[in-house]
Amino acid sequence: MNLKAVGIKNIRFPVKLRVKAGGHQETVASINLRVNLPRRFRQNCVPIFLGVLKKYQNDISVEIFPELLRDVKEELQAESARLEMTFPYFIEKKAPVTKTPGLMEYTCRFTGATGGTCDDLIMSIWVPTTTLCPCSKEISDYGAHNQRAEINLNVKFKNFIWVEDLITTVEQSASCEVFSLLKRPDEKYVTETAYENPMFVEDAVRKVAESASSHPDILWFSAGVESFESIHKHSAYAYVVSDTMR
Amino acid sequence: MNLKAVGIKNIRFPVKLRVKAGGHQETVASINLRVNLPRRFRQNCVPIFLGVLKKYQNDISVEIFPELLRDVKEELQAESARLEMTFPYFIEKKAPVTKTPGLMEYTCRFTGATGGTCDDLIMSIWVPTTTLCPCSKEISDYGAHNQRAEINLNVKFKNFIWVEDLITTVEQSASCEVFSLLKRPDEKYVTETAYENPMFVEDAVRKVAESASSHPDILWFSAGVESFESIHKHSAYAYVVSDTMR
Amino acid sequence: MNLKAVGIKNIRFPVKLRVKAGGHQETVASINLRVNLPRRFRQNCVPIFLGVLKKYQNDISVEIFPELLRDVKEELQAESARLEMTFPYFIEKKAPVTKTPGLMEYTCRFTGATGGTCDDLIMSIWVPTTTLCPCSKEISDYGAHNQRAEINLNVKFKNFIWVEDLITTVEQSASCEVFSLLKRPDEKYVTETAYENPMFVEDAVRKVAESASSHPDILWFSAGVESFESIHKHSAYAYVVSDTMR
Amino acid sequence: MNLKAVGIKNIRFPVKLRVKAGGHQETVASINLRVNLPRRFRQNCVPIFLGVLKKYQNDISVEIFPELLRDVKEELQAESARLEMTFPYFIEKKAPVTKTPGLMEYTCRFTGATGGTCDDLIMSIWVPTTTLCPCSKEISDYGAHNQRAEINLNVKFKNFIWVEDLITTVEQSASCEVFSLLKRPDEKYVTETAYENPMFVEDAVRKVAESASSHPDILWFSAGVESFESIHKHSAYAYVVSDTMR
Repeated sequence: MNLKAVGIKNIRFPVKLRVKAGGHQETVASINLRVNLPRRFRQNCVPIFLGVLKKYQNDISVEIFPELLRDVKEELQAESARLEMTFPYFIEKKAPVTKTPGLMEYTCRFTGATGGTCDDLIMSIWVPTTTLCPCSKEISDYGAHNQRAEINLNVKFKNFIWVEDLITTVEQSASCEVFSLLKRPDEKYVTETAYENPMFVEDAVRKVAESASSHPDILWFSAGVESFESIHKHSAYAYVVSDTMR
Repeated sequence: MNLKAVGIKNIRFPVKLRVKAGGHQETVASINLRVNLPRRFRQNCVPIFLGVLKKYQNDISVEIFPELLRDVKEELQAESARLEMTFPYFIEKKAPVTKTPGLMEYTCRFTGATGGTCDDLIMSIWVPTTTLCPCSKEISDYGAHNQRAEINLNVKFKNFIWVEDLITTVEQSASCEVFSLLKRPDEKYVTETAYENPMFVEDAVRKVAESASSHPDILWFSAGVESFESIHKHSAYAYVVSDTMR
Repeated sequence: MNLKAVGIKNIRFPVKLRVKAGGHQETVASINLRVNLPRRFRQNCVPIFLGVLKKYQNDISVEIFPELLRDVKEELQAESARLEMTFPYFIEKKAPVTKTPGLMEYTCRFTGATGGTCDDLIMSIWVPTTTLCPCSKEISDYGAHNQRAEINLNVKFKNFIWVEDLITTVEQSASCEVFSLLKRPDEKYVTETAYENPMFVEDAVRKVAESASSHPDILWFSAGVESFESIHKHSAYAYVVSDTMR
Repeated sequence: MNLKAVGIKNIRFPVKLRVKAGGHQETVASINLRVNLPRRFRQNCVPIFLGVLKKYQNDISVEIFPELLRDVKEELQAESARLEMTFPYFIEKKAPVTKTPGLMEYTCRFTGATGGTCDDLIMSIWVPTTTLCPCSKEISDYGAHNQRAEINLNVKFKNFIWVEDLITTVEQSASCEVFSLLKRPDEKYVTETAYENPMFVEDAVRKVAESASSHPDILWFSAGVESFESIHKHSAYAYVVSDTMR
């Protein structure tokens, strides 16, 4: 009658992730697992799951996620399984003018489900950016309020996409990108770039949606932009979800 | 083509809630709002919303939520609106033996949506309880590991239900209830009661589901139990969702 | 030999706070208590403490805090007691040009200690503000990056000071104040005001320190400013502590 | 007159930590830095600091922390510097009976300060354990409430101590240790061990204090135990700090 699941929450596990540039990056994942399984198998759920995880630990990527999930499902004799793996991911990024390299941290999540009514694989990223308010710019004699804004993008895809490429797409959808290291010429550049590209949160989310809609490998997406307003204590927020699978 | 919304996140606002015993309780709500609205109205979104909120601030209950939402939608000339209000709620609860009164805090949320494809009103509660592990009890010569476990219940209903009544139902679904004040005879009672009622998280969630399924006024529900295992660093988790609206 | 204490953490309790304008404001406090007490009294620590708290619940202010603490200490037969009460506090604040009223939320904390080596009473506030980067303004042809910045001020005092007055002082120490409601003329005002008052975090903390140093009723203070940089993912931070009690 | 500092908060950085068993472990650190420095050097603070960090990134240990700090101080031409590095640390730990290996996660922090009035190096750990209530056991005909309890230990030392050894000491100070993987004989063992070793939070903190006091290499320590009570919503807490440096 009802959909029931048991699972574990907040297991932390070190993993090695495949990197676009080649090789792997070591990081620490926070893992949630939900399975539908006959009661008699419940007792050994955690040891069996961690055993499977150990096999894949040194070569994680969204590509191998379906295989990992099938293994989890089989070993647990489950009807269905849902696995969520969230981790910080570091990418070296050059400052826009001086090209000084610096490490940027992004939050990423792989979510997979197998069996039951759906067969999902979702890749999610959270990317810090800057938004500069168009209204503030328009009505003020000088300046314009701007702030850090976090863009979240979730996608289902038909061909493999690198996290690195999704991040690049999202970073180009706000008033300006965010960097970890900026020298003076860089700071001038990001200040002026943001001022030249004023955007409300709904402008940024629309731009993300346009990129995702026209991407040949993306089947479905949802996106949200949260702007930590510099003139308020609350956040401005915009959200979009693609209507159908393509 | 796509469903789009803008909104505000994390507005905090003092509100007075209707209490079952009569009168009101003052508390502090965290509010999220999402609306679909023509772009030209965006600028005044926050002042208009806060103006509507102020009208209802002194008499909030799940009963008036649809009216509040209609007002928000109309004043903002939105096609649809979705409002989420989360707040701490205090109930005086007597210790089980000595009947010493003490204040218990519960987290509650009202979620309402109007227009678009759905017309939802969901009442959510998060209730602290105790679970005692049946396996640990069975295999051990003495004792059994137990821990705090949080039960979340979300319901759609056809007739008004008091938060207080939902909480009572949930508190009777675990190994034992949790209290803010316990004297020695009370502590003996809760220790022995938990030992007499061993439950895995899936047993607790099944009991919540049975109560919700048989409740004449509940149309739909989902429930989750998270147990902060005393013998592990991770949580055990069980989840159930009713398959259809009744 | 060693300083030892036992206590409770994260008790939540509704309280009524004295308001400068007269009357009281209802809010929800998060409370930590630490006491040094003979072991035999430990068992009833929580019921006794909550009993004392109940007596004061309807008229809390920093003025009555020493009395509340003495009561806690006596009733618990403790050598010393340390009590920390943190709560959201709402103040109606008018927009700078249109004077539209809106509710601002601030976090406040009262900390008291009695006995042992010190006899402290500290009032703390966390206030959202805006900072605009002087360097960014100087080197850019137009615009300047700015962001929300949180200012924390902690004071010991010789005469009673209202929370409301401390907040006003702190709000005047950043590039611009933050508001909950802004109409177009107000938004123009805050944008231009921030642009006219560029400040690094260390400029803001120095201004807070100057106000606190010259306040006749403040004996000691510490202050910190954390700026959630709009061009980075990390925060800039500045800190100052007064060297001696006056 | 006043002690002033500027800095950065919440920089995240991948680091390799020296491991007692040999080799290194890759993890992700959250870093806070505070420095006292002439205003003219402020602008390049972040690039210079991250440059120094990069030099040490692949071989971090509490042993090299003073050198890292001296380098930071010199490169920034600061009068003093204070650096805090917090990270998750994984240790393979065998189940108590079946010896099944499993990965345990601990939170660790290195804090260093150089110059100014103090010259500190503090190593901190947060370790999950189980506490079982002595009162509950004594008054109940069967069972006893127990729960996860987190023990924090902070030490200054005269000779290098491995994080691994500090963790072992702390794990032996509660009613029972916590594991990531337990088979049935292991679960029986931890249940009965906790029942045989009932402890209030003050008993656990006293045991930690005794071990730290008698450790030949520990100069100073503070310790806290927070027990997430299974019968309450609040935590019980005990704290101890060594009175003097030895």
